[in-house]
This record gives sequence, structure tokens and C-alpha cells, in this order.
Amino acid sequence: MKKIRVGIVGGAGYTAGELLRILVFHPFVEIVFVHSKSNAGKFIYEVHDDLLGDTDLLFSSEYHTDIDVVFLCVSHGEAKNIVDIFKHTKIIDLSHDHRLKYPSHQFVYGLPELQKDVIRQAQYIANPGCFATAIQLALLPLAEKQLLKGNIQAFCTTGSTGAGQSLSETSHFSWRQNNLSVYKAFTHQHLGEIRQSVHQLQNTYEEEIQIIPQRGAFTRGIMACLTMNLKLAFEEIQNIYTHKYQDEPFVWISERNIHLKQVINTNKCLLYIEKHENNLLITSIIDNLLKGASGQAVQNMNLMFGLDETTGLKLKSTAF
Amino acid sequence: MKKIRVGIVGGAGYTAGELLRILVFHPFVEIVFVHSKSNAGKFIYEVHDDLLGDTDLLFSSEYHTDIDVVFLCVSHGEAKNIVDIFKHTKIIDLSHDHRLKYPSHQFVYGLPELQKDVIRQAQYIANPGCFATAIQLALLPLAEKQLLKGNIQAFCTTGSTGAGQSLSETSHFSWRQNNLSVYKAFTHQHLGEIRQSVHQLQNTYEEEIQIIPQRGAFTRGIMACLTMNLKLAFEEIQNIYTHKYQDEPFVWISERNIHLKQVINTNKCLLYIEKHENNLLITSIIDNLLKGASGQAVQNMNLMFGLDETTGLKLKSTAF
Amino acid sequence: MKKIRVGIVGGAGYTAGELLRILVFHPFVEIVFVHSKSNAGKFIYEVHDDLLGDTDLLFSSEYHTDIDVVFLCVSHGEAKNIVDIFKHTKIIDLSHDHRLKYPSHQFVYGLPELQKDVIRQAQYIANPGCFATAIQLALLPLAEKQLLKGNIQAFCTTGSTGAGQSLSETSHFSWRQNNLSVYKAFTHQHLGEIRQSVHQLQNTYEEEIQIIPQRGAFTRGIMACLTMNLKLAFEEIQNIYTHKYQDEPFVWISERNIHLKQVINTNKCLLYIEKHENNLLITSIIDNLLKGASGQAVQNMNLMFGLDETTGLKLKSTAF
Amino acid sequence: MKKIRVGIVGGAGYTAGELLRILVFHPFVEIVFVHSKSNAGKFIYEVHDDLLGDTDLLFSSEYHTDIDVVFLCVSHGEAKNIVDIFKHTKIIDLSHDHRLKYPSHQFVYGLPELQKDVIRQAQYIANPGCFATAIQLALLPLAEKQLLKGNIQAFCTTGSTGAGQSLSETSHFSWRQNNLSVYKAFTHQHLGEIRQSVHQLQNTYEEEIQIIPQRGAFTRGIMACLTMNLKLAFEEIQNIYTHKYQDEPFVWISERNIHLKQVINTNKCLLYIEKHENNLLITSIIDNLLKGASGQAVQNMNLMFGLDETTGLKLKSTAF
Repeated sequence: MKKIRVGIVGGAGYTAGELLRILVFHPFVEIVFVHSKSNAGKFIYEVHDDLLGDTDLLFSSEYHTDIDVVFLCVSHGEAKNIVDIFKHTKIIDLSHDHRLKYPSHQFVYGLPELQKDVIRQAQYIANPGCFATAIQLALLPLAEKQLLKGNIQAFCTTGSTGAGQSLSETSHFSWRQNNLSVYKAFTHQHLGEIRQSVHQLQNTYEEEIQIIPQRGAFTRGIMACLTMNLKLAFEEIQNIYTHKYQDEPFVWISERNIHLKQVINTNKCLLYIEKHENNLLITSIIDNLLKGASGQAVQNMNLMFGLDETTGLKLKSTAF
Repeated sequence: MKKIRVGIVGGAGYTAGELLRILVFHPFVEIVFVHSKSNAGKFIYEVHDDLLGDTDLLFSSEYHTDIDVVFLCVSHGEAKNIVDIFKHTKIIDLSHDHRLKYPSHQFVYGLPELQKDVIRQAQYIANPGCFATAIQLALLPLAEKQLLKGNIQAFCTTGSTGAGQSLSETSHFSWRQNNLSVYKAFTHQHLGEIRQSVHQLQNTYEEEIQIIPQRGAFTRGIMACLTMNLKLAFEEIQNIYTHKYQDEPFVWISERNIHLKQVINTNKCLLYIEKHENNLLITSIIDNLLKGASGQAVQNMNLMFGLDETTGLKLKSTAF
Repeated sequence: MKKIRVGIVGGAGYTAGELLRILVFHPFVEIVFVHSKSNAGKFIYEVHDDLLGDTDLLFSSEYHTDIDVVFLCVSHGEAKNIVDIFKHTKIIDLSHDHRLKYPSHQFVYGLPELQKDVIRQAQYIANPGCFATAIQLALLPLAEKQLLKGNIQAFCTTGSTGAGQSLSETSHFSWRQNNLSVYKAFTHQHLGEIRQSVHQLQNTYEEEIQIIPQRGAFTRGIMACLTMNLKLAFEEIQNIYTHKYQDEPFVWISERNIHLKQVINTNKCLLYIEKHENNLLITSIIDNLLKGASGQAVQNMNLMFGLDETTGLKLKSTAF
Repeated sequence: MKKIRVGIVGGAGYTAGELLRILVFHPFVEIVFVHSKSNAGKFIYEVHDDLLGDTDLLFSSEYHTDIDVVFLCVSHGEAKNIVDIFKHTKIIDLSHDHRLKYPSHQFVYGLPELQKDVIRQAQYIANPGCFATAIQLALLPLAEKQLLKGNIQAFCTTGSTGAGQSLSETSHFSWRQNNLSVYKAFTHQHLGEIRQSVHQLQNTYEEEIQIIPQRGAFTRGIMACLTMNLKLAFEEIQNIYTHKYQDEPFVWISERNIHLKQVINTNKCLLYIEKHENNLLITSIIDNLLKGASGQAVQNMNLMFGLDETTGLKLKSTAF
């Protein structure tokens, strides 16, 4: 097969690093350029230093447009300023600039479990946010069956890589180790894309989705715990989830309680469903940098180029 | 002042160790015996090895009853079997055996912020559970004002010391480091004592308190995040909390968001209140081994013996 | 290519789990059986729960001998009792039972960078220890040139997975988190195999190799810091190492200082060389479960079956 | 007793925070001012937020000289520029500006176990470095007996707080969690003060002290592992250490192996001595912010003002 010619913009950040870790071993990809103005001329492994021995690529100061697809790994707000440069290639935008549908752009929301066929045909993909991915995968089966009703609480805890590599008090090891804190309660910026997808499936749902995000003392992963009131019998709920995801290669319903490290360094999402009287708890876990960012971006690329969506994504879990 | 003669039963566990760390420096305490059948004859510091240099006490194989107060640090279920031995002294039971009121016993629930005067007069104290302490301190001000209404969600994350020193898969470092998991969703055993105290203040409250406990990748501390619907204005809520705790030496309302390590190695509880529309979030943090166990036990002892309740409890925070 | 039929004995432990994580995605392997008496009949993913979604294999209570190669992942001391069962297949023994040469067995020491051609021809392989791998890769280039002289200090720090999954005080999260301790100073059991390899290359070296192992507050990886006195110029030393490893796919000399997470979840070893006057420091890092155990075992298997030695071992680093 | 009037300069950093945590509970101290230009007017607890509830002090923009002692917690290089302001009070300088003896200043090196009587009479104290404290306490007993001979290796691992609160790549949680790395091998800046003290006791010792510092994945503490060749019998060595430290309240010789968390949040140093043939290993542990900085500063203050040197320093260990 002819290789897919790939460009990466914003090559020095966490999501670009993670993308490179996947793409250097992807059998059908040729990395044409990795753009980073501030690192131009350096070896990739001088910034993403675990890649020493895996690639001799250099950062580039220039964009190339003779490519098949570009991954935009730039900051939120920056992506929309450079899409025009790549308008003739496929684009996968990892920022949140194009996740909400607006007449002003033609990006498709890239959550494969929501709309795989649409993604296959798309030229431009807006890659979902990490919290949004974990929460949506927990909600979509019920929304599809028009079963959401009443308020939903989503207590979510994220690893430190979710905040990117910029230095701040809450990313300081001395602060974060052994610690826990809440931030942006009820106001997390991923709420919009979550509601958009829920409405796409169940347009009558107007209640609140209350997200309480926490900073966890771990580096990778998101655990989202969703509670809601639902009368439906446990077995029926379990069936709905099993049925919804039976052909999905990355989403699995666990019959036993789950823990975050089951998915770390993989593109998987695991779900666990519990019910006590009418109280439903759905626990959803992903690796925020993979299924929550760069892994999902590659999954989208695979779909857009007609590949098996798991290509290059059968990743060895870290487990410990 | 004449020293309080203290005995400790179950001296090898985490709560006894923590009690010893406080009591060896308590100005008005003489430790008469520390009972541990399996460690009898050993130095205390052979088990609680950070106490090397602080005490030359030995573990004892025998109980002494010529004491003023005994702390029961034995397993749940064991305490009730040995209370008779110490019936003529004061007893502070750290297990959950006597937390619920029953005609069969005369223990008083030892949450100072609930009923300080009752504790001062009590002979037998049932020391509250750690989750129960964090959650109750967040709820009591509203319950006192008859303001609880509708279901309450309590997402709580606990450090590994909450599970004691016994070895299990989920206490293994290789498992727990960088990890997160839910357990006992909706069914945590502290629910009973929480409801008992809430009813004591607001006997009309019959809705659900839904506790979702999580195992965090840290050693000490509990963070409880309580959400509920409440129409009352933020300022009024803030006033109620400030007023309730204005004379309490260990409970503080923070005006800025809080993080767990603010209370680690102290007997304090910090509360932070947020409101978005009618959604109220109360975050409550304690050190599970101190305000959640041994620190509160010493606070109760201080009250029972007419001391300032902070005696021996002005503890240097670890901070990092 | 016809698939290699593989059996695994001792399937429930850490090294077997790690082997399975590699082999389920290895393009030329068919896993015939995974033996674990205590788990027979269970799904693999019930024990190695991150494998949910990756394999539907079950643990087996029986050995099969109609295989091409067996991996022995049993405890030290147990392997030598079962080798006879598999004497007609190839054997890769991950225990330390056959690492030292004795007339009583025909195992070949499986450190590819020491004797790749011998491994290619071997029927039975003794897979090196984790400390031994990290230390040898730092010493072999000098030994090969007959340059070792005087005592060598090897300060090594290992992650918790190095001690396996058995529960002990020092593997308890409450103990190990934020902690550090020395064990087996000067007496670590890997010293024998290290000396054996050093002698194989430089049989005149009779000085001491002083290993000081430490338990680190991390889960995966070994960092070995070797110091010795050496008059040779830095550039010459650097050349010797570069030359020695120039064709090795898994050993890399870094020109900048290194940190442990550069190799975590990979089969790589990174080396960094520093010299101050005549004091030489060689820092060597590996993932103890991969290049230090199961990854190296698969590397040996690849060599024994004529495959590219990196097959199935181009592993995405965790990085964070 | 009349309270000691204390000033603190550089009040926003880690060592000042730690000093405040001790001094707010010190029975004979009145904190007169805490200087921090950038935080002037803020409450102390807005920066050191674990102090909420413990003090209502504000940061000051001005120095006061009507005090008994000032603690200089400013950066290395800054202290020497402000000592003149406080020349009429006692000064305890926590920076490294005055640790080396020069004719240009009259500071006394404040390691109580080296020269307690000199400290009692001193007006100006240079508080030792953290690595320097851990290493010296391991070496002084032998130096005092003129027993040091041959090179000494000192492998040391430090917690993240040792690098202060400034943000850098190696202090980022995503980088440091689960990680380990070497820095400043053979060249650590504390070598000078170590050699100075060693020479003070054994002026014939001219061999190398080789320090290999490592960044550990923990927040507090230093473990120093010193190896050297020594013919003296183990019992004699043990006696020398026991004798040297028998009246010291903060230094203890452990008869069992030690681990870092035994001293965390205390002012103690624990030593453990092992010998294998002629190879001696001395392991030394301290809390870098206490015995390695602010705790030792208060110990020096206590000595300078004729107090029991443990006053305010009987600190509850964190233990976990």
C-alpha cells in the first residue's frame, strides 16, 4: 500500500509527542514534516527524548502541503488560524476550535463510536476532547435509546498530562504528588461538545450534565463516574451497552469493576455499569493522551484512508 | 497538672501508630501500656519505626486497668468484645462497633462539632469514621438549619492508609501508583452514622445520600465533594457555614479553592463552597488518620478531661 | 510465515503478563497454552485485566508439548524441576535457575549484546536478570577491550514490579509511595551472572563489583549508576561504546543526560557516559519487565527462530 | 520567658514556609515580620495555604530591625547583599552564601553535631545545605577519629522540594512522577562545606568524596548512601557512631535497615551501618526541609538563645 504522507503542526507538545510515538511504528505512514518554530533544526528526540533510537526526524520550520493529511496539535485558538494553509489536504484538528458545529466551517466531529461512516467520508475532522470522549462513550448508548432523563452527575479525575506541558503551580511535582483538587466545577469547556452529541442522538434531553473535574495524582488517564436515576432493569441496561459496542474494537464493557491502569497506554475505553435500586453508576476510563487525543486522531486517520481502524493502535498496555 | 494515664489496645495498626505519634509529645499524657499480642516485648519503634528516638516504650501482652482512658484501635467487630474489661475507665473506641445508637450500649458519638458538650460529659466515646467525618462536617451546618432537601451526591476519594496496613491487591504499590478505582458505590458502611447525625439535626430529611468512594493514588487524606440542589443565595450559605464553625479550632471555611495537602498531617478540616445557579458543591478535606481517626480521638480525650481541645494537636502540616 | 507455537508456564505472574502483552500482538506467534494451576479455566484477562478486549485465551491446567518454544515464568528454583517436560522444544527460562554455567545443563545465557550468534543456535536460553542486564550493558564494551580495572560501584534503583506481585511490607503503597530504601547491599544475587559475562570477555578482571540496590518509589524500570576510575580519554570511551552498540537495535548511547522514563514500556537500554578527571560514571536505564525480563525473552525467541530481533518489540513508550 | 522576636526575609519560598510551620507553634517565638516584596499585604496563608487557621499574619514589604534574630530565606547570592541591614541582630542565613569560612565574614557554620558550643556563642550562623547535612552526619564520627582513608562514594537521592518552588522541566509532575535521574555528578555545590567540616576534624584527609546526586520521585527527604573501604571491625565502627551521637537528640543509629519515610516531617537524622568484608556502607536519611534546612535553623536559634535545642522541634512524623 502507498504510504499516507503525514504532516504535524505544533510538534513539541504532549499530543504531538504521543502522535509521533504511534506514527513512527505505523506501517502505512510516512511522516513528511513535524513543524515547531521554536525547535526547528533539532532532532525530534531532543524534545520527545524517549524517541531516541526510534526516529532521526528533525523539526521543521516550514509547512509542506504536498501531504495527504495534517494533524494540528497547536493550542486552542491557534488551529482555526492555520486551517486555510491546509485546505486542500485532509485535516485532523486536535484542538477544540472546530468541535462545535457552525456554518463557518465544515469539520466533522471525530468520535468514531458516534458516526463512523461520516468520519470515513470527511475531509476535515475535529478530534474530541478527553473528558468529552470519556463521558460521551458512557452516555451514547442511553441517548441512542432516548433513555436519558433527569440530571446527570459526572465526577471526573484527570492525570497531569491533561493540562499539557506548560508549567504551573498545579503541575509542580511538589504540589501534585499525593494531592487532589477540584477545578472548573460545573463549567468545564467540554460540556458543549458533549451536549451536542447527546442532542444528535436524543434531541429531547434538556436536563443538566454536571461535570466536577478533579486533578489526580497520576500522569495519564481519565476516570469519569456518571450517576443518574434510571428505572430500567440492570440487565436491559447492560444489554444496551453490549449491543451498542459489540463491533467497536476499542470500547469494552467490563463485567467486573475497573481501575484506571487497565487502559493506560492503549486506545481503549472500558466501561463498568452498576445499579443500586434506581441509582445508576457508569464508570468510564480512557488514556487521555490516546483515546482522549492522539490515539483517537490516528483512529480517525485510519478511517479516513480506508484502513482497519486499529492499524498502528494495537498498543502494549503499561499495566503498572 | 496530673497526667492522664492512657492505655492503647491494638497497638500495631495504623490508627494506634498515629495515636502514639501524637501522644508521645502530648504534654499531659502518660502512656501506661500499648497492647499488641503479636508484638509483645518488642519496642514500639520496631513496628512504628519512625518513632525511633521518640520513645522507648515496649508493646505489652497484658491489659492494665489502672488507667484513666483506653483507646481501642482493634478491628471492627473486636472492640465490642473487650469493652467490658475497661468498663470502669473512660473508653474511646476507634472502631465502628458503637457508632450507631443502640439500647445495648452507652457510647456517645464523638464528633465534637456535632455535640461537644455531650462529649465532655461522656464516659464512652465512639470515634467517627473517616468518610463520615468529612461528609458530616460538610452537611451539618445545612442540616442544623433544616435546609437539606433532595438527593445528595458525595464523591469521595481516600488515601491508601484508609484501608489499613493489611496487604491486598489494591494496596500493592505496583497496582495503586498512578491508579484510580471506585469501590462500594452507594453502599459504604459509613452511611449509617452520617444519616444518624443528619437526623439528629434535621429529622425530616429522608432523601438519599449517594456515596461514591474512590481509591486514590495517595497515602493520606480524604476529599469529599458533595453536590446538591439548593436555592439559597451563596452569601447566605457561606454565612451559615462561617457562623457554625466560627469557634471551632479545627474547621475552616476557605475563600479560595482547596487541595488535599492543605490538611495532611493536621487535625483540620477545610471546607470550600461553590455555587453555580442552583447547584451547590461543598468540598471537604481531612487527613483520614487524624481528623478522620486518631487526631479526633485525642480531641475527644482532651474534651473528656477538661483540656483545651487543641492540646497536643497543633501539628505541623507536611505541606508537600 | 508459519507461526511459532508458544507455551507459557507460570502464567499469572508479572513476567508472564508482560510476555502476553507482547505476544498477543506479535505477528508470528500463536499462543498455544498459558499454564497456571491456580487460575485454570479463567480468562487471561481476569488476571491480567488490562488485556480485556485483546485476547479471549483461557488459563490452562495442563502442559502441551506440541509447541515450538516454552517460556518458563515460574519462581526461581521451580524452573529446573520442569525443564525435562519440555526438553524436546526450545526453552526460554526467565528464572535464575540456569544463568550460571554448569556441566549439569546446556542453557545459553541469553544476553543478545553479549553473544547473539550463540543465542541464534541455542535450544535452551537462560534469560538474564534485570539488574544484571542493566549493569552488563554498561560494562561489556570496556570488558571487551580489557579496560576494567579497580573496584566498580553500581548504585541501582529498581521499581516495585522488580519484586513481583507478592505482597510484602515494602510493596505496600502506604509504605513505598514517596519512599526509598537500600536492600541486599554488596550481596545482590545477580552478581554471579554479571561476573560470569565480564570474565567471558576480560578474564583477568578480579576486582570487586559493589552493587547497592535501592527500592524506588516507582513501578517500572531500573537505573544503574556505575562509577570507576579510568584514565582513558572521554572521547575514546565514548567511541568504544558507540562502536560496540552501533548495530544493536535496542541499545543507544545518549549524548545528553538521561532519565528513567525514556525507556519505560520499551525494550531499549539507554546509556549515558560522564567523566570528571579520572572518575567515570556510566548511567544505564532499562524497563525491568521488558529489556530486563519479558522483552528480552521475546528478543531471544526472535533470534532463535531467525526473525528480525525487533519483531513485536517496537513498543510505544509510555513517556509519562 | 520573654519571647524571641523573629523576622523572616524571603517569606514566600519553601524554606520560609517550613520555618513558619514550625515557628507558629514554637512556645517562645513571636514572629514580628515576614518579608516578601511580591506578596506584601497578603495573608501568609494565601501563599502557604496549609497555614489557613494557624496564623493571621500578613506578608510585609518592609524590614524591621527591632528584632532578636532574622532568618534569611532568600536565594543563594542574595543573602550576602542584605546582611548589613541586620548586623546588630542575630542572623541565621539559610542560603549558601556564608557556609565557607572567609576572612570577609564572621558567620559560624551551624551544624550542631559539629560544634554546638561555638553555635551557642555565635551571632551569625550559616545554616548547612541539605546534602551537606546528610553526608556530614554520616562522616563526622570517622573523621573525628582520623579514620577516613581512600575515596568515598556518596550516592544521594533528593526529593523535589530540594529544588525549591521554581518551575522547571524536572519539577513537572508529568516528568518526575515514576522517574529518576542523575544531575551534577561529581560536582555538587555542597562538596565545599563537606570538605571544610571533614578537614576541621581530620585535616590529613585529602582523598576524593564523589557525590552522585539523583532526583527521586518523592517530595521530601534525602537519602545518602556512602561507601568506602575500612578495615576496622563492624562493632568498633558501630561503637564510634553510638558514642558520638549518644547525647544528640536528633541523630539516631538504627540497628535495622532504614527507609526514608522514617524521618519525613521530623528534624531527625537516622544512620544505618553495614559492613561486608572491608566494604562499609553508611546510609543517612533526613528531611531536606527540616534537618536539611528550616528545622536545623530553628535548632540553631534554640541554641543561640539558650533554649533546649528540641524546643518546637518535637514534630509528628508523617510516616506514610
